[in-house]
Amino acid sequence: MEDLIDIDPEHVERLILDLGRFGEHNGTGVWRTVYSPEWVAAANHFAGWCRQSGLAVHQDAVGNVWGRLEGREPGPSIVSGSHIDSQTPGGRYDGALGVIAALVAVDVLNKKFGKPRRTLEVLALCEEEGSRFPAASLWGSRAITACIEPRELDELIDDDGVSIRQAMKDAGLDPDALATAERNDIGAFIELHIEQGPVLEAADLAVGLVTAISGLRHYRIELTGEANHAGAFPMDSRRDPMAGFAEIAGGVISTAERWGRPAVTTVGQVRVEPNLPAIIPAKVTFMIDARHPNPEALQRLYALHENLIREVADRRGLNVKFTVVEDQAPLTCHPEIVTAIESAAEAQGISLGALPSGGSHDTQQMSKLARAGMIFVRSKDGRSHTPEEFSSIADIVASIRVLAGTLYRLAYA
Amino acid sequence: MEDLIDIDPEHVERLILDLGRFGEHNGTGVWRTVYSPEWVAAANHFAGWCRQSGLAVHQDAVGNVWGRLEGREPGPSIVSGSHIDSQTPGGRYDGALGVIAALVAVDVLNKKFGKPRRTLEVLALCEEEGSRFPAASLWGSRAITACIEPRELDELIDDDGVSIRQAMKDAGLDPDALATAERNDIGAFIELHIEQGPVLEAADLAVGLVTAISGLRHYRIELTGEANHAGAFPMDSRRDPMAGFAEIAGGVISTAERWGRPAVTTVGQVRVEPNLPAIIPAKVTFMIDARHPNPEALQRLYALHENLIREVADRRGLNVKFTVVEDQAPLTCHPEIVTAIESAAEAQGISLGALPSGGSHDTQQMSKLARAGMIFVRSKDGRSHTPEEFSSIADIVASIRVLAGTLYRLAYA
Repeated sequence: MEDLIDIDPEHVERLILDLGRFGEHNGTGVWRTVYSPEWVAAANHFAGWCRQSGLAVHQDAVGNVWGRLEGREPGPSIVSGSHIDSQTPGGRYDGALGVIAALVAVDVLNKKFGKPRRTLEVLALCEEEGSRFPAASLWGSRAITACIEPRELDELIDDDGVSIRQAMKDAGLDPDALATAERNDIGAFIELHIEQGPVLEAADLAVGLVTAISGLRHYRIELTGEANHAGAFPMDSRRDPMAGFAEIAGGVISTAERWGRPAVTTVGQVRVEPNLPAIIPAKVTFMIDARHPNPEALQRLYALHENLIREVADRRGLNVKFTVVEDQAPLTCHPEIVTAIESAAEAQGISLGALPSGGSHDTQQMSKLARAGMIFVRSKDGRSHTPEEFSSIADIVASIRVLAGTLYRLAYA
Repeated sequence: MEDLIDIDPEHVERLILDLGRFGEHNGTGVWRTVYSPEWVAAANHFAGWCRQSGLAVHQDAVGNVWGRLEGREPGPSIVSGSHIDSQTPGGRYDGALGVIAALVAVDVLNKKFGKPRRTLEVLALCEEEGSRFPAASLWGSRAITACIEPRELDELIDDDGVSIRQAMKDAGLDPDALATAERNDIGAFIELHIEQGPVLEAADLAVGLVTAISGLRHYRIELTGEANHAGAFPMDSRRDPMAGFAEIAGGVISTAERWGRPAVTTVGQVRVEPNLPAIIPAKVTFMIDARHPNPEALQRLYALHENLIREVADRRGLNVKFTVVEDQAPLTCHPEIVTAIESAAEAQGISLGALPSGGSHDTQQMSKLARAGMIFVRSKDGRSHTPEEFSSIADIVASIRVLAGTLYRLAYA
């Protein structure tokens, strides 16, 4: 029976630890930004693993590594993978686990069932986090879906003033070949990823079925009032942007709290000028991150937040400027992929927790050209983007079994 | 009649512009931190003016400049003055105006009425703002009232790593003589100062009678939660210090708004870690500045703020650490000084606006050893601590007439 898929826990653990050595940071951490020497070494190392598994390896123009197991029939590929860049620092699992899982799953299917009917590919995407070039998020999947503007090559600059074009050259890649990274022959994309939240842990489940990925907006808001003396200026005479900020931040957070799951709203970044204890500030600049997987609910959430921003600024006599600096549509995972994942889990007796993803993922990009879906692995304490992120090998093995069963259904059945 | 005191507006304007040249910053601004070369030059220049007016000049151990007009009778001195250091940058009026006003007033009394009965002294205090050494606020008046701990000489360090001891030496002063700056022979202290707020302007009055100086606390508050992914962490699972900060900042500001004048509360400084758009922060550190001139009301205001801080932190599962980093008792201005100011104004047909001072001043320190009070001059748009601060020469002349009449009542009558 095709569904009793054996995965060797020790082998999986060895791969995770091996890949974690590239950019190792303080023990369990990883600091591996795109096109850095650590990243180049990790990509090459992964390509070597693919070759050892008998896959045909190709690195595209932006540095995505593809490992191909040719199918018996022509037609679009069934692809699985994730990203190998990390946060600064991140851990060993975010992204890297999905790359390893894809390789392990395809390898075990190849060994057990031979050549698939449809071509199977594993994919190590080059850049998802945007931790070196903040505006380069989803760079690898955007290259595949032809969603990179060529001017970005020169406009995206890292903290040291290096353009992404130069960084690509330094990594031995040809930026002018950008367009050749496009693919239009992918039939399905499945990404395995750590949950990065506490939902599976609270439900006591190892593996998650992602039903949808939240859409999100990042608002950049600038409130300008008038700097004045904290003692000598009566409350009724102030135009205090900190008072406005506190009302807005408190209000948008409280709205999401009242709505409850799956709505979230976060204020993570704020800058105050002049930022002195006894001066009413002149300006407060901050970011609001709002997310919901349901398109209609998402628009209602945005509208509530925007109305509050305007009302508070207006009432307090503050000038307000707000810009949407990031805008991602929500994604409902493809029903055929969802069904395949459910069936693969059920056949192997693995319970799934269905949940939306609050984090954004390459899967959102890949859904533009393929049926797309995701499998989550339980995260310890819901932590991620930190050296402390952790998923147990038992949970990981269970999730790879589900992934392999899913790929079997899509590529062999 | 002693109360028709003539003050030459052009002379006053010339003195203001002259003193403003020491540390001149972008035209109307002044950048004159204690013990800097600009400050040394300003102090020397002021000492020269005192000598020209026939005053006996003495610079004490910390650099306060005293100009003395000996009285016909022995006994404690009647002193007027303010500070000559500035914000970074400040304007030409904050502090400097009170120093010039004292000299002009004593000079006109001396010329018109000769030797006073009681000794009159003008005083240029060396450091009030703490803009070079933040913890050195009221340094000059604290030296006079023996409220400096000798260890402060080595503990107070500027941004370049220079101790205040070294800065004093560089300015030609002897830090080891600190204790000799103490005075215990002062009978009255009157400080003329710009209002730094909009109250007199709104009341269409040039001169203010300060009834009290607000007491204040600066709370430093550290809220610690847990950094997590802004998308993957449901609202109900967060320990978000930004959510706590917004509630507390919004709450304490709203309390002061509801109380109305003279209560004020300001949140001017905040630091967020890690301060990224899509990460729930781990820690938010901020300052609360709360003030009220009434001792009982002040304690009630503190208690409300502290209770809110604890309640929010507790409800949101945040660790909270709060420290009172500045604690100044309110001061009710001395009734004899208040009466003298009122009488001097009335005799010259000058209307006074009675108001508390929300800003803290050297007068608070000086009140420890003398009957103390303050005269305010209308500030344009309530601005201060900026090159844009401005008071008209007409308003300034009116306030110096009130000061001179007050000093006459205290020193000649």
